[in-house]
Amino acid sequence: MPEAVLCESKDHESLDRLLDELRTKADVPFLFTRLYRPQFEAIRPDLAALLDYDEVSGTAYLHGVRSKRPGRVAVVCAGTSDLPVAREAVRTLTFMGIAPTLICDVGVAGLHRLLERIDEIRRHDIVIAVAGMDAALASVLGGITGCPIIAVPTSVGYGVATGGQTALNAMLASCAQGVLVTNIDNGFGAACGAVRMLNVLNRSK
Amino acid sequence: MPEAVLCESKDHESLDRLLDELRTKADVPFLFTRLYRPQFEAIRPDLAALLDYDEVSGTAYLHGVRSKRPGRVAVVCAGTSDLPVAREAVRTLTFMGIAPTLICDVGVAGLHRLLERIDEIRRHDIVIAVAGMDAALASVLGGITGCPIIAVPTSVGYGVATGGQTALNAMLASCAQGVLVTNIDNGFGAACGAVRMLNVLNRSK
Amino acid sequence: MPEAVLCESKDHESLDRLLDELRTKADVPFLFTRLYRPQFEAIRPDLAALLDYDEVSGTAYLHGVRSKRPGRVAVVCAGTSDLPVAREAVRTLTFMGIAPTLICDVGVAGLHRLLERIDEIRRHDIVIAVAGMDAALASVLGGITGCPIIAVPTSVGYGVATGGQTALNAMLASCAQGVLVTNIDNGFGAACGAVRMLNVLNRSK
Amino acid sequence: MPEAVLCESKDHESLDRLLDELRTKADVPFLFTRLYRPQFEAIRPDLAALLDYDEVSGTAYLHGVRSKRPGRVAVVCAGTSDLPVAREAVRTLTFMGIAPTLICDVGVAGLHRLLERIDEIRRHDIVIAVAGMDAALASVLGGITGCPIIAVPTSVGYGVATGGQTALNAMLASCAQGVLVTNIDNGFGAACGAVRMLNVLNRSK
Amino acid sequence: MPEAVLCESKDHESLDRLLDELRTKADVPFLFTRLYRPQFEAIRPDLAALLDYDEVSGTAYLHGVRSKRPGRVAVVCAGTSDLPVAREAVRTLTFMGIAPTLICDVGVAGLHRLLERIDEIRRHDIVIAVAGMDAALASVLGGITGCPIIAVPTSVGYGVATGGQTALNAMLASCAQGVLVTNIDNGFGAACGAVRMLNVLNRSK
Amino acid sequence: MPEAVLCESKDHESLDRLLDELRTKADVPFLFTRLYRPQFEAIRPDLAALLDYDEVSGTAYLHGVRSKRPGRVAVVCAGTSDLPVAREAVRTLTFMGIAPTLICDVGVAGLHRLLERIDEIRRHDIVIAVAGMDAALASVLGGITGCPIIAVPTSVGYGVATGGQTALNAMLASCAQGVLVTNIDNGFGAACGAVRMLNVLNRSK
Amino acid sequence: MPEAVLCESKDHESLDRLLDELRTKADVPFLFTRLYRPQFEAIRPDLAALLDYDEVSGTAYLHGVRSKRPGRVAVVCAGTSDLPVAREAVRTLTFMGIAPTLICDVGVAGLHRLLERIDEIRRHDIVIAVAGMDAALASVLGGITGCPIIAVPTSVGYGVATGGQTALNAMLASCAQGVLVTNIDNGFGAACGAVRMLNVLNRSK
Amino acid sequence: MPEAVLCESKDHESLDRLLDELRTKADVPFLFTRLYRPQFEAIRPDLAALLDYDEVSGTAYLHGVRSKRPGRVAVVCAGTSDLPVAREAVRTLTFMGIAPTLICDVGVAGLHRLLERIDEIRRHDIVIAVAGMDAALASVLGGITGCPIIAVPTSVGYGVATGGQTALNAMLASCAQGVLVTNIDNGFGAACGAVRMLNVLNRSK
Repeated sequence: MPEAVLCESKDHESLDRLLDELRTKADVPFLFTRLYRPQFEAIRPDLAALLDYDEVSGTAYLHGVRSKRPGRVAVVCAGTSDLPVAREAVRTLTFMGIAPTLICDVGVAGLHRLLERIDEIRRHDIVIAVAGMDAALASVLGGITGCPIIAVPTSVGYGVATGGQTALNAMLASCAQGVLVTNIDNGFGAACGAVRMLNVLNRSK
Repeated sequence: MPEAVLCESKDHESLDRLLDELRTKADVPFLFTRLYRPQFEAIRPDLAALLDYDEVSGTAYLHGVRSKRPGRVAVVCAGTSDLPVAREAVRTLTFMGIAPTLICDVGVAGLHRLLERIDEIRRHDIVIAVAGMDAALASVLGGITGCPIIAVPTSVGYGVATGGQTALNAMLASCAQGVLVTNIDNGFGAACGAVRMLNVLNRSK
Repeated sequence: MPEAVLCESKDHESLDRLLDELRTKADVPFLFTRLYRPQFEAIRPDLAALLDYDEVSGTAYLHGVRSKRPGRVAVVCAGTSDLPVAREAVRTLTFMGIAPTLICDVGVAGLHRLLERIDEIRRHDIVIAVAGMDAALASVLGGITGCPIIAVPTSVGYGVATGGQTALNAMLASCAQGVLVTNIDNGFGAACGAVRMLNVLNRSK
Repeated sequence: MPEAVLCESKDHESLDRLLDELRTKADVPFLFTRLYRPQFEAIRPDLAALLDYDEVSGTAYLHGVRSKRPGRVAVVCAGTSDLPVAREAVRTLTFMGIAPTLICDVGVAGLHRLLERIDEIRRHDIVIAVAGMDAALASVLGGITGCPIIAVPTSVGYGVATGGQTALNAMLASCAQGVLVTNIDNGFGAACGAVRMLNVLNRSK
Repeated sequence: MPEAVLCESKDHESLDRLLDELRTKADVPFLFTRLYRPQFEAIRPDLAALLDYDEVSGTAYLHGVRSKRPGRVAVVCAGTSDLPVAREAVRTLTFMGIAPTLICDVGVAGLHRLLERIDEIRRHDIVIAVAGMDAALASVLGGITGCPIIAVPTSVGYGVATGGQTALNAMLASCAQGVLVTNIDNGFGAACGAVRMLNVLNRSK
Repeated sequence: MPEAVLCESKDHESLDRLLDELRTKADVPFLFTRLYRPQFEAIRPDLAALLDYDEVSGTAYLHGVRSKRPGRVAVVCAGTSDLPVAREAVRTLTFMGIAPTLICDVGVAGLHRLLERIDEIRRHDIVIAVAGMDAALASVLGGITGCPIIAVPTSVGYGVATGGQTALNAMLASCAQGVLVTNIDNGFGAACGAVRMLNVLNRSK
Repeated sequence: MPEAVLCESKDHESLDRLLDELRTKADVPFLFTRLYRPQFEAIRPDLAALLDYDEVSGTAYLHGVRSKRPGRVAVVCAGTSDLPVAREAVRTLTFMGIAPTLICDVGVAGLHRLLERIDEIRRHDIVIAVAGMDAALASVLGGITGCPIIAVPTSVGYGVATGGQTALNAMLASCAQGVLVTNIDNGFGAACGAVRMLNVLNRSK
Repeated sequence: MPEAVLCESKDHESLDRLLDELRTKADVPFLFTRLYRPQFEAIRPDLAALLDYDEVSGTAYLHGVRSKRPGRVAVVCAGTSDLPVAREAVRTLTFMGIAPTLICDVGVAGLHRLLERIDEIRRHDIVIAVAGMDAALASVLGGITGCPIIAVPTSVGYGVATGGQTALNAMLASCAQGVLVTNIDNGFGAACGAVRMLNVLNRSK
């Protein structure tokens, strides 16, 4: 599992202190998640310079990423608003040495766009389905493919969609069999779930 | 709008009293909804004999149905568990003189079954989509057709699906534009919504 | 259905990039929704100048609106606080080529004001009822008219009204038959629902 | 305030024991609430014979009612399903020596029926409005009259109406000013609230 | 009932426009509620100068208050954090011509302080009990006095108290008989409820 | 901590099998909780005969109780409906060798009854406060005494009180400092919490 | 994926009709889930005789199970009350030709019992963790092992545990990385999730 | 119990006024809680200079702390994000004259770190367990030790963990016996609960 630091509630002093401490452990790559732009910009410049930062996903790498390992993972997302969460999954997988495929904007309201990409999706071992609102993408993917589906609800939308609880529940209640679900907006957790599967998969080869 | 009697919380004495009163108004057809088997069986036999009863939907007609009127309405449902609600919509429409089409068991987990019926569905003016659990059917139908979609969430399922709130919220948060929603298990209300549309449609012809 | 862009969670860079891309498709009108004042003001001036922006509803048109089409739609709202949502419905309908009537400030706490406008409301084919708090407007309208009622709950109010869930549930549980409901604050969706009905209505003429 | 016994969770042994104890206090009238038919029938016959029982409201009087006192209270209810709660209010007021008026079946879906009775309702000092589902009755009454409105939400209905929380919230969020609310199905509490007002009213005369 | 303007969601342009319109109706006093400091400061100075503004309660009077009328109302609040809501009740009553008594900081955690003031409280005809968190004040007052209790839950506190839902439910479930409840933080509504009672009380004298 | 068996979801076959197994461990006393009358009656008679059963609390002892140990614990409950939960606490304490005091029917709606018993309550080292509905008892006790208060919410009541969530939240949000709370209806847990305290208390003597 | 029939809301007539239809497809094994004892006993005897029924899990096999396939899956459950759900997972896996290991009664309240079994658990490729109440088992297992963890919340317990929502949320919010979650009580879905993983695992060998 | 001032909703004017008043009562130590950095910085400098302020916990002492008293209390927290709440407990205990031990970063996802500290934890009389998200720490501690466990849920985390309700419910539903719980983020209340226990403990020695 990755050495990860959840930055969400950390102020810049804690982050500076932590980075000062971790910078010396140069042989261990660290992953920072939920490191938002204002937090990142408040980090002491010499420390910030050590980080490989991605704003969309709010992630950063310290001391690079882990060495390459096999694993065909597709990260599929319904709309462009789901991109930050999808990219958190992509960045976490990349950190773990896996090269995922990102497939965007294939929500079921435009079913034909999704159906056009199905063959491509099926060429992967694991599918991470990222969607908010009605989260119907996970059910459609679950019905069409037989590989593991990790469903990540997002907090995109307004009204009853606010906060992602509707997407979460729709994914848990999916009419497709065997869809597995993470916490809302937890692209990191989905990637970790995929890594757990790849641990076994790679071991068995 | 139909003269309708919601029977849910009525005991057999109230039902008997009401039927005794309504039996004399022979020129007005009445629709009884949520009249479950035990309630129906407790009605005084001579009164029960006046009713055209359907157990699956828990509906009954008194003094027949209204005269025929045009209207192409498809009632589409995801699974066989949604049938009681779908049939409530069908029976209400029939009561109003409309002859709907019932299309069953086309949930999105078996997407191909749904896609096979799309042309048939498109030949209707109004689609009533009945689904529980993740309720993804409404979004897929909304994306594929341009006619009015009335989405009816059902209380089918367990865990987070219990009671139908997840299906309701997923339909309200549908990624398809312009999907309109009724209360949970409200096949009657969906049919009335369709009747309101047909009122205008028929007037305009 | 309209080509629409939900701007809510988009930053100005995404919006600039998108507008740069869409500006060349000059023959397709685009509708932007939930584009709030600070977002609009952050758009690159030459791009912003292409937009017909309405602050109250947070909507903008790019490349004008669609060509005129018939359709008598009344957008009725309870209080002035519901106006942003009501105007989102009006602007979406206008974008689709329909000229709706906006009727304001007819909440049921001042029932006489509503009753004075009933004849006017009845002259329309479709009524969009926009209300927050107890949302009683939808029930009263549903009881008085036989045409389609699209009820839009708003997130107006405080305490138990916060967020619009009370208005949503009250509309779903309306004692008037056949009232159909959208997500909270979804004036856009209500307009799309009306457009779906007009699609059929116009076809049938 | 009334000497009242909430029977809901009491088994027949507790009820027998209590009645045996209270039967000797013949000069104090007692009110039993939420005493449902099966509980009542399980009471020891000689004790049950002491009770003036009303099945619809699940109330019983022991040692009669209090002496007559002035007070013009209207108990207004939306549908026949709300009757048990409305009658609980009526029976409690009667127990306290007040002779209320019961006005039924005036829900806002049939607004004309309500408007026909408005003059009659206005002739009272206090209005208890009993309604479930969207509970719009309380708002309409609150807008039309200037006297105290005590709103009682009922647990009537299904789907989002189940349990009465929607009616409760709609009443609390009423757009009419100064509507006061009780717990769900609490006709007893509404009557007690009215009695508190009459305590002051009678004192001041 | 007061001519009242809920300012919560109004921007300064709407407020300016409204004040410009109302300033000419000099014979009608208007009450503005939920007018928070930043909104008030954004009003055009010549218009703001017309207002009698109270920051704690966020209320303002335009064209003075109504003429004096009798009415003994006590506004009792549990903690100093409840003061804004308590003062909204006080200011609304004052606007209506009534001179209420404000009794502060008598929460039940310091029961002796409450008991010391009981005689004073009992000298009033109506008690408005304002409390957040566990809201136990309403139950204790309801048990000790026989006059009308209007309970106002406040959104004070953190964790499960956040937003006031716990206080609201505790008041609705009060073990004291006949306690009547308003929406969360609705000091205005409580005052209006008291005014409705005084309407009847004054008429009867 | 007690060797306890939660019987709630166990059928009589499981209970028979378990009792057959435990009957041989005659030197260890076992406590059975949530063993309701129908379950108890379905136990094989020779096994049931081994149990010291208390119907009100749904508890049973097998192989007697633990040896006496010091500990002054008062179990205080608001109404007679709270008695099953209060007795579960009493029975668990008795099982652990502690002799608690049970003080009933001292809810805050009758504050004088509670105040009369305060001196008695204060003579204990630990107070377990059992209450449903508004659960104000815990706050009043917490304000009056300085010893540990273990608050147990009960699922007594209807409407918003249903299930005990309101009582739970009111206790967690208590305005009295340092009130500690258990799960709803968890008299057993409250007793265990008291035992943990007595473990330390007795050790320190 | 298994050919599965969710029996929950099916009456015996539907079941008889379905079995009559499926009995002829003798080469396809079918799995019935949520087939509770009373439903099973109401099935026509000649049809019931075709079923390999397991009461604890409410599952039945028709036409045997699928052919054996490799897969080391541990189903770990916290308490005996979680057994029905754990066995639903076991029976579904068995139906799919996989021979899982069932490890019971290792909840974290008795941490030593869990730690004793850790080596055994680690010898599996996939762990299904079944737990209700605080569901801490999933987090502890997730922290100790690096293989895929499928967490199944159960509806065991009372008060805040009722219905399993607390267990579900605790699993989704697990502090262990990459724990994946199913709907409440969904042992079937967890097994299907494992099967999806084994599909890939077996393919890769 | 401590003389404590909850500063959360107080503006700097109220704080200045209060400090001016309390500064003269130099013989009584006062504890300020939820006094966040911006509030603290807005206090009049001469008054702020009187305070012993701790930013992490948002607490301040006025006129020092109470005199030393015995009491072995361990404050144990799962992650560094829980530190503000843990420190609020530590600072409150220190204010009361007790010298607690703070043990950090022993969440169950890294079970070995927790097990290494168990002996140290067991040397205390009372354990305050502070944890958010799945809050499994409280259950593990409750299973391993027999002393009083005061569990404090924190609002750390996102998605279903937001606001701390999941942690709260998981602690209330703990599978360990006799775990007692405070409101979310209520380190102060946990310390007060411990003080109540120490009151009795010290008295008994």
